[in-house]
Amino acid sequence: MVKHLTDFSMDEEFETYVLIKSADKRVAKNGKSFLSIVFQDRSGQIPGMFWDVSEQDAQQFIPGRVVYLKGKRESYKEMPQIKIYEMRLARTDEPHDPLMFVKRAPMTSQEMKDYINQTIFEITNATYNRIVRALLNRHAKSFFSYPAAKSNHHDFAGGLAFHTISILRLAHSVVQQYSGINAPLLYAGALLHDLGKTVELSGPVGTEYTLAGNLLGHLSIIDAEIVEAADKLGIDGQNEDLLLLRHMVLSHHGLLEYGSPERPKLLEAEILHELDEMDASIMMIQNALAKVKPGEYSDRIFGLDNRRFYKPHSVDQSHDDGQDPSRLF
Amino acid sequence: MVKHLTDFSMDEEFETYVLIKSADKRVAKNGKSFLSIVFQDRSGQIPGMFWDVSEQDAQQFIPGRVVYLKGKRESYKEMPQIKIYEMRLARTDEPHDPLMFVKRAPMTSQEMKDYINQTIFEITNATYNRIVRALLNRHAKSFFSYPAAKSNHHDFAGGLAFHTISILRLAHSVVQQYSGINAPLLYAGALLHDLGKTVELSGPVGTEYTLAGNLLGHLSIIDAEIVEAADKLGIDGQNEDLLLLRHMVLSHHGLLEYGSPERPKLLEAEILHELDEMDASIMMIQNALAKVKPGEYSDRIFGLDNRRFYKPHSVDQSHDDGQDPSRLF
Amino acid sequence: MVKHLTDFSMDEEFETYVLIKSADKRVAKNGKSFLSIVFQDRSGQIPGMFWDVSEQDAQQFIPGRVVYLKGKRESYKEMPQIKIYEMRLARTDEPHDPLMFVKRAPMTSQEMKDYINQTIFEITNATYNRIVRALLNRHAKSFFSYPAAKSNHHDFAGGLAFHTISILRLAHSVVQQYSGINAPLLYAGALLHDLGKTVELSGPVGTEYTLAGNLLGHLSIIDAEIVEAADKLGIDGQNEDLLLLRHMVLSHHGLLEYGSPERPKLLEAEILHELDEMDASIMMIQNALAKVKPGEYSDRIFGLDNRRFYKPHSVDQSHDDGQDPSRLF
Amino acid sequence: MVKHLTDFSMDEEFETYVLIKSADKRVAKNGKSFLSIVFQDRSGQIPGMFWDVSEQDAQQFIPGRVVYLKGKRESYKEMPQIKIYEMRLARTDEPHDPLMFVKRAPMTSQEMKDYINQTIFEITNATYNRIVRALLNRHAKSFFSYPAAKSNHHDFAGGLAFHTISILRLAHSVVQQYSGINAPLLYAGALLHDLGKTVELSGPVGTEYTLAGNLLGHLSIIDAEIVEAADKLGIDGQNEDLLLLRHMVLSHHGLLEYGSPERPKLLEAEILHELDEMDASIMMIQNALAKVKPGEYSDRIFGLDNRRFYKPHSVDQSHDDGQDPSRLF
Amino acid sequence: MVKHLTDFSMDEEFETYVLIKSADKRVAKNGKSFLSIVFQDRSGQIPGMFWDVSEQDAQQFIPGRVVYLKGKRESYKEMPQIKIYEMRLARTDEPHDPLMFVKRAPMTSQEMKDYINQTIFEITNATYNRIVRALLNRHAKSFFSYPAAKSNHHDFAGGLAFHTISILRLAHSVVQQYSGINAPLLYAGALLHDLGKTVELSGPVGTEYTLAGNLLGHLSIIDAEIVEAADKLGIDGQNEDLLLLRHMVLSHHGLLEYGSPERPKLLEAEILHELDEMDASIMMIQNALAKVKPGEYSDRIFGLDNRRFYKPHSVDQSHDDGQDPSRLF
Amino acid sequence: MVKHLTDFSMDEEFETYVLIKSADKRVAKNGKSFLSIVFQDRSGQIPGMFWDVSEQDAQQFIPGRVVYLKGKRESYKEMPQIKIYEMRLARTDEPHDPLMFVKRAPMTSQEMKDYINQTIFEITNATYNRIVRALLNRHAKSFFSYPAAKSNHHDFAGGLAFHTISILRLAHSVVQQYSGINAPLLYAGALLHDLGKTVELSGPVGTEYTLAGNLLGHLSIIDAEIVEAADKLGIDGQNEDLLLLRHMVLSHHGLLEYGSPERPKLLEAEILHELDEMDASIMMIQNALAKVKPGEYSDRIFGLDNRRFYKPHSVDQSHDDGQDPSRLF
Repeated sequence: MVKHLTDFSMDEEFETYVLIKSADKRVAKNGKSFLSIVFQDRSGQIPGMFWDVSEQDAQQFIPGRVVYLKGKRESYKEMPQIKIYEMRLARTDEPHDPLMFVKRAPMTSQEMKDYINQTIFEITNATYNRIVRALLNRHAKSFFSYPAAKSNHHDFAGGLAFHTISILRLAHSVVQQYSGINAPLLYAGALLHDLGKTVELSGPVGTEYTLAGNLLGHLSIIDAEIVEAADKLGIDGQNEDLLLLRHMVLSHHGLLEYGSPERPKLLEAEILHELDEMDASIMMIQNALAKVKPGEYSDRIFGLDNRRFYKPHSVDQSHDDGQDPSRLF
Repeated sequence: MVKHLTDFSMDEEFETYVLIKSADKRVAKNGKSFLSIVFQDRSGQIPGMFWDVSEQDAQQFIPGRVVYLKGKRESYKEMPQIKIYEMRLARTDEPHDPLMFVKRAPMTSQEMKDYINQTIFEITNATYNRIVRALLNRHAKSFFSYPAAKSNHHDFAGGLAFHTISILRLAHSVVQQYSGINAPLLYAGALLHDLGKTVELSGPVGTEYTLAGNLLGHLSIIDAEIVEAADKLGIDGQNEDLLLLRHMVLSHHGLLEYGSPERPKLLEAEILHELDEMDASIMMIQNALAKVKPGEYSDRIFGLDNRRFYKPHSVDQSHDDGQDPSRLF
Repeated sequence: MVKHLTDFSMDEEFETYVLIKSADKRVAKNGKSFLSIVFQDRSGQIPGMFWDVSEQDAQQFIPGRVVYLKGKRESYKEMPQIKIYEMRLARTDEPHDPLMFVKRAPMTSQEMKDYINQTIFEITNATYNRIVRALLNRHAKSFFSYPAAKSNHHDFAGGLAFHTISILRLAHSVVQQYSGINAPLLYAGALLHDLGKTVELSGPVGTEYTLAGNLLGHLSIIDAEIVEAADKLGIDGQNEDLLLLRHMVLSHHGLLEYGSPERPKLLEAEILHELDEMDASIMMIQNALAKVKPGEYSDRIFGLDNRRFYKPHSVDQSHDDGQDPSRLF
Repeated sequence: MVKHLTDFSMDEEFETYVLIKSADKRVAKNGKSFLSIVFQDRSGQIPGMFWDVSEQDAQQFIPGRVVYLKGKRESYKEMPQIKIYEMRLARTDEPHDPLMFVKRAPMTSQEMKDYINQTIFEITNATYNRIVRALLNRHAKSFFSYPAAKSNHHDFAGGLAFHTISILRLAHSVVQQYSGINAPLLYAGALLHDLGKTVELSGPVGTEYTLAGNLLGHLSIIDAEIVEAADKLGIDGQNEDLLLLRHMVLSHHGLLEYGSPERPKLLEAEILHELDEMDASIMMIQNALAKVKPGEYSDRIFGLDNRRFYKPHSVDQSHDDGQDPSRLF
Repeated sequence: MVKHLTDFSMDEEFETYVLIKSADKRVAKNGKSFLSIVFQDRSGQIPGMFWDVSEQDAQQFIPGRVVYLKGKRESYKEMPQIKIYEMRLARTDEPHDPLMFVKRAPMTSQEMKDYINQTIFEITNATYNRIVRALLNRHAKSFFSYPAAKSNHHDFAGGLAFHTISILRLAHSVVQQYSGINAPLLYAGALLHDLGKTVELSGPVGTEYTLAGNLLGHLSIIDAEIVEAADKLGIDGQNEDLLLLRHMVLSHHGLLEYGSPERPKLLEAEILHELDEMDASIMMIQNALAKVKPGEYSDRIFGLDNRRFYKPHSVDQSHDDGQDPSRLF
Repeated sequence: MVKHLTDFSMDEEFETYVLIKSADKRVAKNGKSFLSIVFQDRSGQIPGMFWDVSEQDAQQFIPGRVVYLKGKRESYKEMPQIKIYEMRLARTDEPHDPLMFVKRAPMTSQEMKDYINQTIFEITNATYNRIVRALLNRHAKSFFSYPAAKSNHHDFAGGLAFHTISILRLAHSVVQQYSGINAPLLYAGALLHDLGKTVELSGPVGTEYTLAGNLLGHLSIIDAEIVEAADKLGIDGQNEDLLLLRHMVLSHHGLLEYGSPERPKLLEAEILHELDEMDASIMMIQNALAKVKPGEYSDRIFGLDNRRFYKPHSVDQSHDDGQDPSRLF
């Protein structure tokens, strides 16, 4: 089996193909120039320094390029690092498509589209249905390719749609368990809640905040688009359904301190907020735990108040207590 | 159909049977004594004043007694109030069982026991299974009759078990949706998380905090019982499974400010905390909205940062936008 | 000179015309019905109780009606109160226009319009100018008649426009004093910053929050209208000037905790926020101090963290220190 | 035109005169000693390392000395840095006055004195006037040469007086706009509010906190001096004017958390606090934006909660929207 | 034995002498005037209403007067209240000295003076000693008669001196236990830390905040007096000892939020702050517990974050565990 | 006299014996391996780098080993550092016992045991006495050898017992000064309050948090042990004395934010919390000040909100003010 970037053990030498995620030219204390590069494939990222860099090197080894890399896995300040023996651009007869080296959502684009389509049929309120269709249509391409965040959770290609679908699944469970929930409102809110990120973020690769993202935030961005869409669909600006839908989006961060201009004032808005939080938490914790061994603590998770999480040793699931598994009550 | 206590309209005169929830003897500014009573049936509560109270009246009209009540529904300081025409203890040939007038969980005790039994079979880890059985056994009677809180959410007979089951249901959905969750730990934690309330609270009626509840809180109460039970079951005090289970219970309030001595440091602990919060939120909002009419705002909900929630006018679910319900993607 | 409602001294008997601000029918402990009324004229408000209320009384003595009132100024729980001797609706040959009894801005509507017009000429940036014109036009009537808040500051007819003008005046001083400020952006932001209140609030009389106000807040309301207006004016949604203007509006509460989804990230946005705060503070303090005598403390001011303010005894401005008023430096 | 320190472009070689702001002797990993120097002129600061440092070098290249510097502008860890080719002390026939290399207030000392003098004439209350004169006299030299802060805002020679004057100017606008403000109190408070910094800080160069500054803070320092001065001027300690003036100074940080032992309880104290904050904010933002190009974000500003500010691309001020600039209202 | 005001049981009739603590004339809903009086003796306070009040009654029954009172102990809204049968001013041949009815410190004035004198001898640093003598001399009368607070803790005549002595006692224990503490500084700081309350508060009876108290607070009041005293004693303003002593006083509230302009930066200042807090806490808790019976909770204590405290049933101190009281280690 | 590790001055060459506190193998930028070591003796710690490290070196130079060290005291990034000339393991005929190089409590183990024994006799309540004996017995060895914290305060061998004794001493003073304190409860609480640290921490050397420590915290650890011990001693779980003792332990951090699941609700619990805080504060400040010279500020102290403390120049204790040391009052 092919080894990936993070599979090599300490001091192991290797040859492989990787994507350049970032590359900065710097000067060492001794005056020599070098490229500080971060390499990436679907297994993760590791930095390395490329010394004696020529002008041509600096121009060709740029973010987004796939390279053939020969080197050794070392360590610097207790973090993994690659000592570079040889590096050149990948040829067209070699693996050279950047998308092959980027993490992707665990569902295919088509599976995600199917799920979304199915949910839209359940949005039986005309106002919500039409607005959701209009806006998903407008941002479809970005919606299925963007990450859900610059870093933190669901920070992979397709992460935005996948995070939306995770929330929709939980929402279906909640609708089943509790009576009296306005399901179309909840689903419509879930579908639109993070759609503004297609404008807030620059794209699936080298993701940065746009000017609109920095000055407005994704809540206000999509809120204004909902109004615009409603206007074009001939829906009155004071229509209660429209106000409810805007509230779902504007309040989904839950607290003013987290950027929601209003706290949830609808049952469905409170539910959306809590499901959003839960899906993001689970994803962040699972990502962090995936990087450590049983019996260890994860790195601090910024999005969870810098908590570390513990990975237990073994998950013994056998049932051997000798007790008769008879009913308790 | 029989009208209940909160069904009578303004100025309506009535005869009915109700439970005395509380009764305090007071003196009015003009020097006369009266009983300030709160009447209750399953529809809710309304206060009333009983004037010219004799010593005998004060002794017989006490909390927990069912009375025949003849009066008029009035209003005082914008709150409903009953003007009492006549009041006497209910006779044994009349409705007189206090439990008939108290709200109950929407599942029967047996249904709840069945669900719990079933879940225990899914706790395939022997350590968790044995501890859970031991403690549920010890507190079984209280567990199925206590409320989940003095006020706030699930404050009805059987509320503690019902709240536990609601969390278990959500937990099953989460386990299905996300891989890699330690289901036995999550279920065991959910079953025990509020069990300390059987010691923290005084009982299903006239619920107050006990001294142990006030000085220790239900987290520390059940934590110590887990250790005691493990000790008797011969489980070592430093057994990792035991430590994990204790952590589930101790951390389930999520924040130190909410009384958890440790924040969640396990994926399952974080999930339990979030499910606990979500179930409580939904129940509190639904209760509050049930008391108001469409287009109105609920009272402030203490357990949700004093927010008011809005009850929309109509939940139109028809799908008549003329658009062909074809797939979007 | 005619005495106003708050001019009467303790125990003084009087006849006058006043506006009914609010009137609630209640039942006293002794079972009798009465109307709890708040009377109002431009001098302030005083409550009174109208006893032995007939059905007809309850129907005619409603908010918004002007009445002839004969009574005595008394005190209840240390607050002024009116003992009502006689009350009837004002006839058409008596003062009976409600607007005569409501506080108004210290500028006439025309003076305010002139000032706004003049400022618009100074908005020399086409994007800002066109959007400001479009939105002020749409909401002109409300803009010049609404208060700036339900209570707190500028809670009088015309208060919204007057508050806006106060900020513009301070903004002109700031632009003069500091070089490099984008004046058109600052003025446009000031003109629009609270315009959403024309939708958030119900009107100049008996002001309440609308549903849109409660669910969205005036920041998001006007933000979406800016986008809609820009769309109709053919201004591109990603135009930098448009984004800056939206940011001015969205960030003007300064802190996320105060409902701004973004904190100010432009020099002009920070200035707008601080001027807004300063004008509101001065107005609240001056209102509170106007009600007390020198040497006393004002009531607690809710909008200023419940602080009380002190009114000094005398403001001696004579210069009699015997020192020669020669230059110091 | 002469280029300044921060004008040189990447890799540019240069000769110039600069001030040594700080110089620390350190040992590199390879064991060699070097001086880590920060060079400064009125354009800003850049660090550089001076290698192979002799004992004599270490004694002559100290903070406050002007040097002839020959070197190249490079970059280290993405920050500008100077590679030193040659360095020696400036001779007396070369630029060698340290004050030539330090930033100064944009007004001359005389202009500032004139403005202060004029304002003192407007302090028509004898108590305020005499105390202000006494204390400005005592600290005159420091007042016109000190910075207003160790870093943050107005951190240049003369910054303290300039910051005071900026507040006075804004205060004049406020006095003009709002009636009923006690102008002499406001001006006297503004003049004294930061005067304690002449004791709190060590001086205009290499500014540090003094022991008194660290243990007492500039509010308590000047407060005690006001009392001492009043005592010598024969003003009674309980004189209301004196108490008001002390309150102006003690409360001007606005919040207890910011070191004011009392929050503002006078209209004038609240105004002073807000003007102080506004002037500091504008200055900090303008300084931060001056260092970046249009379309970029400033560094985080510590004194403004670590916010970054955005510098827009172009400030188009032409009025070409084709619309007739007729009156709107 | 003579019964005191709070000794009478429910419905008990009595005759006694009491002090009028406060008396407000009010109008009942039925239009009749009455005096709302609070009666007081050393056992505590109880309110009562005096009906059919004449003009003469209103003039003679004022705060500070001792009255003969005949009445019954009743209850209103669950709080004790007195039904007044008869009331007249006490004659000169009856108990009529107000000071007999006010709580006092548990030490006599002379005992407190002796303790203070003794401590001053231990302040062997001349700077501290001279300043302490000067200020205690100036405020001696108030220092030994004022309470330590308007309400909260030590709110009795002589409370200020007694609280100071309690801290000094604890300080002596700390000095004995830990080496290296600057005892003279600690004692001097303790002696002066609350001395400003003699200016902040109006007096031992009917204690209110003065204007100086409201605008400056007792920390700044005494700080300025220290400087003034030092100035007259010829101690230089920058003398380190003087700065340390000022810091002790200014920082003793511990947190900026509690009104200290600086947090403690000296070991002795931190100790003073903690001792101050501990003595106040113990006094507040003991006062609150004195009012309830074993097994009950106290009222909420404002100065301790509104906590209630529990009074245990019995304090069994017998040693009967059958175990031999041999050494453990 | 023998010089210790931190006694050597800059650039001084030396030979000595020291303990290796930590040793990590790293790779320098130039690719060479080195050991980053921290050396320690009772005077403190200093790091050093050991270059050209062989496999054998890495295996023998590990934490806990005593080495002969020849080197020079240098400085790196303004922190002291050792340049290593020669290093080898200490022989058995040289100083080689690790305990000789670790800081210890200022009392011997026997002195501490004597003090504890004596205090236990004063715990005259049988319930407290028996539980305290049982738990101290169980953890005796750790109790007298563990530090009281991983870092912060009392982080030396025996620190846990010494910290407990310091609190007991202060508690004795408090009991003497204030009447009505339940001394046996206070002493028992003090003895047990931190005993859970014997399970929370890994040991006196290379102290880390254990899994139980991380997941439960020392409060819950000892709380559960108290319950277990009481169970075995036949003390009923709802015995009031038992609940009080558990509350002492659970509430001793004072605030929920600091990990106490309940805030103190007993007078003795509040006292224990404040004494705990005071002893820790004094110890932290004294440690920090011991490292700096008079006139300097300490490093920031993490456990005291990152405050720096000032070390005054001289503590002049002579009494030479010329004033007659006569009584003041």
